[in-house]
Amino acid sequence: MDEFELIRRFFDTSVDDPDVILGVGDDGAIIRPTPGKEQVQVIDTLVEGVHFPRDGDPADIGYRVVAVNLSDIAAMGANPRYMMLGLSLPPKEESWIPAFADGLFAAAAEHGVTLVGGDTTSGETIVTTVHMTGELETGGAILRSGATPGDIIYVTGTFGDAAAGLRLREGGRHDEFLMQRFWRPDARVQAGLQLVGRATAAIDVSDGLLGDLMKLLQASSVGAVVDIERVPLSDALKSHFAIGEQRQLALTGGDDYELCFTAGAAEVPSDLHCTAIGEITTTGELQCRLDGAIVDYDSSGYRHFQ
Amino acid sequence: MDEFELIRRFFDTSVDDPDVILGVGDDGAIIRPTPGKEQVQVIDTLVEGVHFPRDGDPADIGYRVVAVNLSDIAAMGANPRYMMLGLSLPPKEESWIPAFADGLFAAAAEHGVTLVGGDTTSGETIVTTVHMTGELETGGAILRSGATPGDIIYVTGTFGDAAAGLRLREGGRHDEFLMQRFWRPDARVQAGLQLVGRATAAIDVSDGLLGDLMKLLQASSVGAVVDIERVPLSDALKSHFAIGEQRQLALTGGDDYELCFTAGAAEVPSDLHCTAIGEITTTGELQCRLDGAIVDYDSSGYRHFQ
Repeated sequence: MDEFELIRRFFDTSVDDPDVILGVGDDGAIIRPTPGKEQVQVIDTLVEGVHFPRDGDPADIGYRVVAVNLSDIAAMGANPRYMMLGLSLPPKEESWIPAFADGLFAAAAEHGVTLVGGDTTSGETIVTTVHMTGELETGGAILRSGATPGDIIYVTGTFGDAAAGLRLREGGRHDEFLMQRFWRPDARVQAGLQLVGRATAAIDVSDGLLGDLMKLLQASSVGAVVDIERVPLSDALKSHFAIGEQRQLALTGGDDYELCFTAGAAEVPSDLHCTAIGEITTTGELQCRLDGAIVDYDSSGYRHFQ
Repeated sequence: MDEFELIRRFFDTSVDDPDVILGVGDDGAIIRPTPGKEQVQVIDTLVEGVHFPRDGDPADIGYRVVAVNLSDIAAMGANPRYMMLGLSLPPKEESWIPAFADGLFAAAAEHGVTLVGGDTTSGETIVTTVHMTGELETGGAILRSGATPGDIIYVTGTFGDAAAGLRLREGGRHDEFLMQRFWRPDARVQAGLQLVGRATAAIDVSDGLLGDLMKLLQASSVGAVVDIERVPLSDALKSHFAIGEQRQLALTGGDDYELCFTAGAAEVPSDLHCTAIGEITTTGELQCRLDGAIVDYDSSGYRHFQ
């Protein structure tokens, strides 16, 4: 048995989802879609040296590639169901694949997602792609395009943590909480499900809060004003950086995998633990406000090709 | 607008499939599964320098990554519907992406497949992953596991062409037909659809005929005898190689993207243009026969990590 056969067998786990007619091991997986529901399909690729450091723990890499897809599913308000893995990697020590699979299955198990197939090939660097399928009621998806003037802008969680962890790392320092926020994003699947029928628009924040909010504004043909001091920051972030750097990390750092959404003030359940940071306007532009005054802020998010 | 925004817009084509509620451009695509049908999902990754030469024409690369997924869908007997693209690549000249997209959309259009989303990132080499969704009637899928002793083994098309084209290329020679067979596999989608309810088992031959047939035999817990001289060869292949090399290329060369399937003799429609090459046995092993005598043959197919 060659290495690939071993890998295949490693991912060929038992499936206890009755809607998975056939999982890993044939030319394709067979799935029974839930009658009357729509499907959400997402795909995300993480590349070693681009999206995560080369010396990453394989379990963290496995967890993260699932979590970033869960975050996309969450932003649509869907319930994640199935995933497929495309994995390209150089020869690795024997322990790498089992550890990677541990992290992958851990993230999937937290949200009841079943791995139904994959393709593993050799390559010069680690490139890992996950495709995920979610389900939702017909017409229930939360799009980027539904925000209207007067809506409140909300976010889940805190911002800038992952970027802060990476910046510390570049300087040879380490903060466990911040690096965990990078490696093990807590995909807001439950929040997404609670927002169906309440949020008017939502986006997964992966490239920086202002940059991704701008995409939502463009899709909705509206503007916004964001109060910078209302953007939630973690104590860990605040403990390591001066106020200016805190804000820069939170507004443009990226890798947050939190949701940014819009809703009428009465529409957000109080148990959702989200924070209002601004309001949708008619201006067509994204304005940042600090202590009540409009300030200039570079809204360019994380970019790969720079 | 940065390079990635340009790429996104390039793939953001209009969609005229009424079952695609939302295509490229949000956090995920929204699809309406056809009521009462099952889904087949497949994923395949092609890596520059591993699965195709580094100097490949981008249009060919785009065509091929769709075709290899179509071939998996075909082997299950499903009708291909939707696809998503994960693309990782180094900075390219401006013409690369449009040419890649041309090839990708050409292969998709041949089979009515709609691109519903994707993710493009930077990377050191080209790694391209396509996920494809097909549909079929409930219980209609052709699995690898249904072959029974006495079934005839059939194949579509000719074998060894792609591997022959690559071998010539290594020696500095070129055969247009053979290289087209490598770059533009003719996915047997129609044949797969015609085989539903007729074939007892099927597999997509990508890693070499004997190696992939062995996987079918193992899944079905049966054996087989293959008559080597019955494996169909193209005139182009025969014109370039001696008989021994022809057979080696056809049996183990890989990259064929033809179907190998089993069926009762009466079950195969005469208009299918397939060739009987052997028979399923009870022995549990794969035997090759040449001029009526059992011969030794290395059944190991194409392997990446060698």
